[in-house]
Amino acid sequence: MYEIDLNSDIGESFGNYKIGLDEEVLKYVTSANIACGWHGGDPIVMEKTVEMASVKGVGIGAHPGYLDLMGFGRRNMVVQPDELKAYIKYQLGALMAFAMGKGKRIQHVKPHGAMYNMAAKEEDLAMAIGEAIYEVDKDIILMGLANSEIIKAGKRIGLKVCNEVFADRAYNPDGTLVSRRLEGAVIHDRDLAIDRVIRMVKEGKVTAINGEDIEINPQSICVHGDNPQAVEFVKKIRLSLEKENIKVRAISEFIK
Amino acid sequence: MYEIDLNSDIGESFGNYKIGLDEEVLKYVTSANIACGWHGGDPIVMEKTVEMASVKGVGIGAHPGYLDLMGFGRRNMVVQPDELKAYIKYQLGALMAFAMGKGKRIQHVKPHGAMYNMAAKEEDLAMAIGEAIYEVDKDIILMGLANSEIIKAGKRIGLKVCNEVFADRAYNPDGTLVSRRLEGAVIHDRDLAIDRVIRMVKEGKVTAINGEDIEINPQSICVHGDNPQAVEFVKKIRLSLEKENIKVRAISEFIK
Amino acid sequence: MYEIDLNSDIGESFGNYKIGLDEEVLKYVTSANIACGWHGGDPIVMEKTVEMASVKGVGIGAHPGYLDLMGFGRRNMVVQPDELKAYIKYQLGALMAFAMGKGKRIQHVKPHGAMYNMAAKEEDLAMAIGEAIYEVDKDIILMGLANSEIIKAGKRIGLKVCNEVFADRAYNPDGTLVSRRLEGAVIHDRDLAIDRVIRMVKEGKVTAINGEDIEINPQSICVHGDNPQAVEFVKKIRLSLEKENIKVRAISEFIK
Amino acid sequence: MYEIDLNSDIGESFGNYKIGLDEEVLKYVTSANIACGWHGGDPIVMEKTVEMASVKGVGIGAHPGYLDLMGFGRRNMVVQPDELKAYIKYQLGALMAFAMGKGKRIQHVKPHGAMYNMAAKEEDLAMAIGEAIYEVDKDIILMGLANSEIIKAGKRIGLKVCNEVFADRAYNPDGTLVSRRLEGAVIHDRDLAIDRVIRMVKEGKVTAINGEDIEINPQSICVHGDNPQAVEFVKKIRLSLEKENIKVRAISEFIK
Repeated sequence: MYEIDLNSDIGESFGNYKIGLDEEVLKYVTSANIACGWHGGDPIVMEKTVEMASVKGVGIGAHPGYLDLMGFGRRNMVVQPDELKAYIKYQLGALMAFAMGKGKRIQHVKPHGAMYNMAAKEEDLAMAIGEAIYEVDKDIILMGLANSEIIKAGKRIGLKVCNEVFADRAYNPDGTLVSRRLEGAVIHDRDLAIDRVIRMVKEGKVTAINGEDIEINPQSICVHGDNPQAVEFVKKIRLSLEKENIKVRAISEFIK
Repeated sequence: MYEIDLNSDIGESFGNYKIGLDEEVLKYVTSANIACGWHGGDPIVMEKTVEMASVKGVGIGAHPGYLDLMGFGRRNMVVQPDELKAYIKYQLGALMAFAMGKGKRIQHVKPHGAMYNMAAKEEDLAMAIGEAIYEVDKDIILMGLANSEIIKAGKRIGLKVCNEVFADRAYNPDGTLVSRRLEGAVIHDRDLAIDRVIRMVKEGKVTAINGEDIEINPQSICVHGDNPQAVEFVKKIRLSLEKENIKVRAISEFIK
Repeated sequence: MYEIDLNSDIGESFGNYKIGLDEEVLKYVTSANIACGWHGGDPIVMEKTVEMASVKGVGIGAHPGYLDLMGFGRRNMVVQPDELKAYIKYQLGALMAFAMGKGKRIQHVKPHGAMYNMAAKEEDLAMAIGEAIYEVDKDIILMGLANSEIIKAGKRIGLKVCNEVFADRAYNPDGTLVSRRLEGAVIHDRDLAIDRVIRMVKEGKVTAINGEDIEINPQSICVHGDNPQAVEFVKKIRLSLEKENIKVRAISEFIK
Repeated sequence: MYEIDLNSDIGESFGNYKIGLDEEVLKYVTSANIACGWHGGDPIVMEKTVEMASVKGVGIGAHPGYLDLMGFGRRNMVVQPDELKAYIKYQLGALMAFAMGKGKRIQHVKPHGAMYNMAAKEEDLAMAIGEAIYEVDKDIILMGLANSEIIKAGKRIGLKVCNEVFADRAYNPDGTLVSRRLEGAVIHDRDLAIDRVIRMVKEGKVTAINGEDIEINPQSICVHGDNPQAVEFVKKIRLSLEKENIKVRAISEFIK
């Protein structure tokens, strides 16, 4: 039996500012990466988002980011591993309190934006994130770019890990994502994107940008709920996966 | 047997800015109120402070404040109860992660500054704080101004509560603190201050500013570690209490 | 000849978060209150907003608020007059740099949200705002609630002042706004709202909520650009004023 | 006649947090780099610092930094040139308002910490800073690492520039500073440090870390006021320079 998780970044609104169709996208995903107030989100938003995810039975994940609300956590910052470790604990703990208030546990942690990208490449930052999670609660799953440094770090530390893939992004032959600055980085053909994820799940393979097939074994697919079209696409991915007898479930149900 | 706790606000440094003789004052107190990053403190400071308190066996408390680093959380802000409730969960959770990393639990929550003062008087804010704690972990003790609204709220909600008193502050006949703006608000005579706390603990009484004796049953005395003189005074209070056969212990050891 | 200004709060987007149809509403208003980064706005948004207002010949105003992005500057905070004075200088100066970059001057200052409301009632805060402006540039016009403390403070200090009125708000007999919490506070009938502002401009009168006529002499009317309907209403107000031979111009053109 | 300026970073306290012996160091320096609230400083501190510098006749400079109070502006952040340009305008303008309140003009701008270092090396960031200043007020002097990219950018844009040198730092043969991580980066021998700056001023030369003499033509020497020993050293540098008939004056008095 094939199993896969669909995850989406949600709870990124802040104060008077609203973004994302969180309620809509939560109908189709099985795991939610919830912003923790540093790059987006605020305590009121966190409370409501955890409540929504909880009611819909969606896995609750912490989505920590750099303290850069103005740049939405998307700008690289030079932080030391001990700083990053403390930042992860802080944000993970903050979200944990809201989950505890609903009788829920944190299913996973997925770093956001620039932190996600840096942790995919730099071993010391990847280790810092993994250690932070392990010290707080060793049952939490670490989600990150498939086969990257963060996945390796998570395994080394003894955490359960989740390889994340992207339906709409091209891959380099070494398994990294093609930079958005290069042509062909984003796959705009939705049917092709869906075919690719189905193949990733069933065959454990994806065609890299140079035409070569590479191995990839995803446990979760990242999807977006920014606008109605995006949500429609999520719905379509989910239905397409189910039509192929791929079971769409939260990672906590199959990563043991 | 008489028992009392000594508590101090610590972990209020931020980034490059250092304040408080935390390491010194931790030698004499039994409970620590640790800033959670909103009015003071940052994740690196929280990690180190929890570590120090943990090593010394001092009870770890969350010290949440308003999001006003520039005003050090000392300025009243009009926040709604649902906002305050979410702010408490956020800060409590953040500190909890650092405590979990040391295999420790949060002993208590004591609001900081303007939040402390507002919660002592306004029932809806007091209830919001108590409910936040109860939802996260009903075993956490709520510490606040002796006999104030926050103590009443904690009891109503089903939390364990801790009446806090001040060695160096004068009391009104109704048990509230004399405003710092009034003459006689602060007791500068250290021996008198110590005699007063001893009487509070042993007789459950203190002389109010009008000369009248009022009832007060403290479980904890607030002390400060801002400078070497303050730390000396904490040491003296502790020794004086012990000489009177009053056992100085963390509240978790005698509030059940 | 009758003259009036139409003003709107703009430039309130922040980083990744967009709000307000700034470009649309700038077609119809004559003065813009531009957020200065504390309750909304950021330097990139300020640069673009000043550029847009500058190109369209709209008067550039600073719209300082409390340092409370999470509450959008709408929550009362207890700040001391010297603090408020420094906060006004800081935000006014920041916007001034962007205006200078376009060869423009700051036309006016209008406090935002909770700061606006507090300064309309509390003389010491009103004086602090007026003094800040006067010390930086005594030619800047101070805009605030018609006939309130801030207008009185501005006059006392020697600033030019601008009485602001609201098309869609009911007035108390003493000239203050009826609290939004009370029934009848907001005038939903758009034709009635327009008739009221025309009468304010031509007759210097408005009917208070108790039916009594009160005197009011507006130099500017506050309008909103939050959504397409709001912008349509602004357009309608402008056309209606012009049909009545009321000249719609920036306050700097007629307040001398 | 030899002329040189002594500059120091001041006004870095924030809210309840105090650092730096600003009042002391202002007795000996001729130019002050005043923090603008992003990496340090707040509006109340800025008001007081501008007042102090103004009274003592010290040149008022803006000291903008990254929005990273937690890292004191010392951590590299990836910002785009248009972002950096807007950040400089914002902070420069904010300080300008306080200077205008004292009838003073901004003498210079010197970027802080990570921004200083990045702008010394990256042309596009250096140009962004220079353009921001030029657009706001083309008479302001741009101060930066002697002979670095920022000096070149300032000249290209048409700004007056100030080559800054460090008394206590070793230089590479190419005129850049020896990284603090390398041995010999900091010159601890105070007499040697003073001899070096005297030679830089009189002969336009300094001995690089490899023993080679390199050309350097400083207009300002950076000094520190962090503690009483640092202030003593500043005093000694000043007296030593004057004994050598080197006139110590603000850069605005000799950079035309």
